Amino acid sequence: MTIFDEATAVSRRADGQYDTRPDVRFALVVPGASTPPAVNGGALLATVLRAVLSESPHPHPVATSAHYLRVPRLAPAQIEVSWLKHGRTAATARAALVQDGKVILDTTVTTGVVPEAPAASTVPDGPDGGLEWTGPPPGFPAIGDCVDLGKWPGTVAADGTAGYAAQVEVLMDPATTGWRQNEPSGWPEMRGYFRLRDDRAPDALVLALAVDGLPPAVFGLGATGWAPTVELTWHMRAVPRPGPLAVQARSRHVGGGWFDEEAEVWDCAGRLVAQSVQLARVGRGPVRAAANGAAIATGRS
Amino acid sequence: MTIFDEATAVSRRADGQYDTRPDVRFALVVPGASTPPAVNGGALLATVLRAVLSESPHPHPVATSAHYLRVPRLAPAQIEVSWLKHGRTAATARAALVQDGKVILDTTVTTGVVPEAPAASTVPDGPDGGLEWTGPPPGFPAIGDCVDLGKWPGTVAADGTAGYAAQVEVLMDPATTGWRQNEPSGWPEMRGYFRLRDDRAPDALVLALAVDGLPPAVFGLGATGWAPTVELTWHMRAVPRPGPLAVQARSRHVGGGWFDEEAEVWDCAGRLVAQSVQLARVGRGPVRAAANGAAIATGRS
Repeated sequence: MTIFDEATAVSRRADGQYDTRPDVRFALVVPGASTPPAVNGGALLATVLRAVLSESPHPHPVATSAHYLRVPRLAPAQIEVSWLKHGRTAATARAALVQDGKVILDTTVTTGVVPEAPAASTVPDGPDGGLEWTGPPPGFPAIGDCVDLGKWPGTVAADGTAGYAAQVEVLMDPATTGWRQNEPSGWPEMRGYFRLRDDRAPDALVLALAVDGLPPAVFGLGATGWAPTVELTWHMRAVPRPGPLAVQARSRHVGGGWFDEEAEVWDCAGRLVAQSVQLARVGRGPVRAAANGAAIATGRS
Repeated sequence: MTIFDEATAVSRRADGQYDTRPDVRFALVVPGASTPPAVNGGALLATVLRAVLSESPHPHPVATSAHYLRVPRLAPAQIEVSWLKHGRTAATARAALVQDGKVILDTTVTTGVVPEAPAASTVPDGPDGGLEWTGPPPGFPAIGDCVDLGKWPGTVAADGTAGYAAQVEVLMDPATTGWRQNEPSGWPEMRGYFRLRDDRAPDALVLALAVDGLPPAVFGLGATGWAPTVELTWHMRAVPRPGPLAVQARSRHVGGGWFDEEAEVWDCAGRLVAQSVQLARVGRGPVRAAANGAAIATGRS
């Protein structure tokens, strides 16, 4: 079993009741670093989805909306699932990750069926499946031309404990990595490839991780620091082929301390397999000047 | 009081418990037409939000996710609101529209504060408010060059009962209206202006209506018929100025009977005030050939 599957495991107590434990191996920083060991939100979401899918009448989480309320401790937690509808095309459940009686992560999940075969299938898959269309893909450089984001400070502790960045490999389009050298591009966009270092084949649970797997898009505008997700919605559009996922994320508006981020995930066969949108808080770190000198920041320097 | 405010009114019974009634004046088709009188999903969502905001510690619904489960009857319904968190920056509630003991519409709403002043304010609005950035706006034609979508068949009954299209004015960019003459553009995009015929100033409740206020983007690919929303998430980004709203909606992928639709809403001062994404089912009507002759449809003609 891979580290990802261990870290997102759930133990069934009864229908709709599961035990789990946020895992230090998906912490953004590990214990001993200067900030609390917040666990990656995608890993928490994958854990909740694992519980939901284990009792869903349909195989795929076609629409998942998640509101992040609190940072969990690295301690026992519960998942509570209640079904609101069991339909022929779609079923909907509320599911929450709860710790100490408080909701950490509140979700609603609608499950259904998405295409297994390539989206450009020549075989229509039913009365509703006749129309097939996909917009032009974002441009991704060859994976060999990308920059390995690596393991950032705080993700591996002195005692060898390893967190999130030790479990995932993120290979970035060099055009979107200027912020690493204190030269943000002035454009809130990230592009890169995402895969588990365990080389586990992507599925719905890995897609839940990948949709928020790149650095915050606002790093391209010079923002720094942890940018906590407030709400994230993602749609599964097709079952991904085994291989690395290509992810593009961009923001359209930053203001009042909030920013949006829309992501698309494409599989190695060039199919759009997942989409997401999130609303997040701008990190509290200092704002760097953009490389192009644009006055993108007011009020802070 | 405007028709919109009457049709989305709620009556408080106790904290977290409200009575309401889906209103025929926001039905997509009115009784007596050939299909059931489904009420516009945005009007239902606005009703739920009215209940949530009436007891929220923060004024704005910054992130609302909604799963549409069932079509309500034009009969008494209840709204149930339960708060999961009351935070300094954000508060989160679950809220559901319930009829006959079944959930019609299940939502989670995170409230907070978004800018009242123009997004390009020169006065920073707090420690998190320093970074301001907005992407380039979509191109909208002058409102005078747009095509009035008008009142479609079935929206006004023989007895004078008027539904949704009699309450809203939608003025479409002519480049996105070819489907009306059986000549869809071959591109799943809609652009237009949206306002209530009552000329009520837009606020959070009107934005909930506007984000899904244009015809389905897949009409541009030749799809026809009602395209029911399965899940819709929207983010309020700023308080709109009084005046018509400009809305752009597009889809990125259609397949397996599902399509996504992302919308942006801009106010008359040129500010991005709301964003949304939805997953919907492709309508069951016949597929028209695109004007450009592209083979966008398989399996149906």
